[in-house]
Amino acid sequence: MTEQTTEGAVDVVPEQPRVTIAQVARLAGVSPTTVSHVLSGKRIVGATTRVAVQDAVRTLGYRPNHVARSLRTRRSQMVAVIVPDLTKPYYSVLTRGLADATVGAAYGTYVCNTDGSAERETGFLQNVLDRGVDGIVLASVDAVSAAAISAADFGTPVVCIGGSIDHPRVDVVTIDEPAGSRAATLHLIGRGAERIGMIQGPPESGLLRVEGFFKAMAEAGRSVDESLLAKGDWTRQGGRDAMTALMGLAAPPDAVFCANDLMAIGAIDVARELGLRVPADVAIVGFDDVDAATIVTPALTTVRNPAYETGRKAGELLLSRLRGEYRETGRTVVLDCPLVLRESA
Amino acid sequence: MTEQTTEGAVDVVPEQPRVTIAQVARLAGVSPTTVSHVLSGKRIVGATTRVAVQDAVRTLGYRPNHVARSLRTRRSQMVAVIVPDLTKPYYSVLTRGLADATVGAAYGTYVCNTDGSAERETGFLQNVLDRGVDGIVLASVDAVSAAAISAADFGTPVVCIGGSIDHPRVDVVTIDEPAGSRAATLHLIGRGAERIGMIQGPPESGLLRVEGFFKAMAEAGRSVDESLLAKGDWTRQGGRDAMTALMGLAAPPDAVFCANDLMAIGAIDVARELGLRVPADVAIVGFDDVDAATIVTPALTTVRNPAYETGRKAGELLLSRLRGEYRETGRTVVLDCPLVLRESA
Repeated sequence: MTEQTTEGAVDVVPEQPRVTIAQVARLAGVSPTTVSHVLSGKRIVGATTRVAVQDAVRTLGYRPNHVARSLRTRRSQMVAVIVPDLTKPYYSVLTRGLADATVGAAYGTYVCNTDGSAERETGFLQNVLDRGVDGIVLASVDAVSAAAISAADFGTPVVCIGGSIDHPRVDVVTIDEPAGSRAATLHLIGRGAERIGMIQGPPESGLLRVEGFFKAMAEAGRSVDESLLAKGDWTRQGGRDAMTALMGLAAPPDAVFCANDLMAIGAIDVARELGLRVPADVAIVGFDDVDAATIVTPALTTVRNPAYETGRKAGELLLSRLRGEYRETGRTVVLDCPLVLRESA
Repeated sequence: MTEQTTEGAVDVVPEQPRVTIAQVARLAGVSPTTVSHVLSGKRIVGATTRVAVQDAVRTLGYRPNHVARSLRTRRSQMVAVIVPDLTKPYYSVLTRGLADATVGAAYGTYVCNTDGSAERETGFLQNVLDRGVDGIVLASVDAVSAAAISAADFGTPVVCIGGSIDHPRVDVVTIDEPAGSRAATLHLIGRGAERIGMIQGPPESGLLRVEGFFKAMAEAGRSVDESLLAKGDWTRQGGRDAMTALMGLAAPPDAVFCANDLMAIGAIDVARELGLRVPADVAIVGFDDVDAATIVTPALTTVRNPAYETGRKAGELLLSRLRGEYRETGRTVVLDCPLVLRESA
């Protein structure tokens, strides 16, 4: 935003004379109630009347007036959700949870896709503030962006998905990733795996999932064989590449914990191509519990990442601030991510 | 919308005196540019300055002014997309296509989930009109709702996904379902299937997919064996139930065309449980090409329903009207849905 547009936006608005429903009704020769019914579509109105009302609406340039109400109440009744990519199931389900939590309080849901670009994220944050949204849910690229803090400074409540932040108007909804990863790894240990590998995320990414793996191994008195640790890029192909490398070792793993389901599905692809039985020859566990986890063969044992509950909780945290029920310092809600046992381990 | 709230909304708005960025800057003892940087988060500003600006913003109750600009331009710069359920991949991908088509023109995307309820759909249509959205994309429960027509009457351009409608401000984006279904069925005929069944949608639903099946059979001089037609409810379980019934027949099918992928995946489940090889014992084709189609084993041969392109085209149709480039009668755009050959047929 340049200074010029900012200044322009805060000038007093030249108010246009507003057309009322009563004026539309007079011109159309019907009652205001009938105009309302034609506009709302809630009641069927005869064709002649409908055309008369439409003509009057067009002639007078009547527009409904939510915008004017926003100016009066200083509320847009809109919550923005800023995510990397709505087409990834985790984010569409999270968005649905948010929408369901807030629709009852008459908030609309406004969606922005950043594609993981910090620049787009900053742009969207500015954009939604400029629109006067009442709250923001941010699944950020980085742990927490400076722009999010700025939004909160400005007075708009923000809920960050994951990460940690200390700000009086920023709440956080996160999941207990170390506990989920620990449970997955202990399950592999418990079923007798001797050589447990892990397909991790890219460098510096998904570290809490790695932490839980190491924690479980230490608890069980197991040393981690560094040669059994591989890195993927969260994609199915990344999982295939990592699994191909692991299974090509002189002493390959007999169990692999994958930091997400897509990589685990890639790992299963490789096992099948190598003629290995899952889980008899190599057990595989994922993380996230996306829909695909039940579609792949064998069905994937995985750690559930509660996307819907995360979105829903984010909506509840926003509402408590928007309703003035909560005005204190930032809260962090940690949701459980339980192990879901299926066939692959 | 009741008459009362409508009347209330069209009253002239009592304009509150507006705080300018210049006033905030004066109180904080900094330049307006610095205030803008603090608010936008685009540049890092020292902590002392940041706090001073935040204090001034809070003291004066400064708010950014998109709402005022909306009133001036009579544009909300917002497009609404009304879908049954954003968590279904088809709709999240369609929504992403719409967002990508319109974000460059500075339109935001507002999402509503109807869960297939005509009542919720009518309510959301009224709601988004009341908010003054600039355009509506409607993936309706029914072919076309009366409320959508009312929205268009009112002056807001509407794009319907599927269906057909004759209205000067309603465009339609649809796919050539009969051609896609015909290609799928001809493929099964071409690979030598003798007894071709179909798992259809529920009664009165997905009829164009059924039409293409019958057309292909007639073209090939095949008679349709009514006993090989089953109905599902679009779900995986529905596909399982229908396939179980078909394979329990004295003369079961050796190929099944399923009206969507989820039912096809349910059909593959049943084939596997019965120890049948797909496609050697029974070939299976789906429709939609959701992500799961490549995750199931064997990978699903299916008809591609171009969700992203549908959303994108809907956005383009809206933009052409919003920019005033097109003011004529309603258009219908029909997108191809090609057969994608994989392993299941």
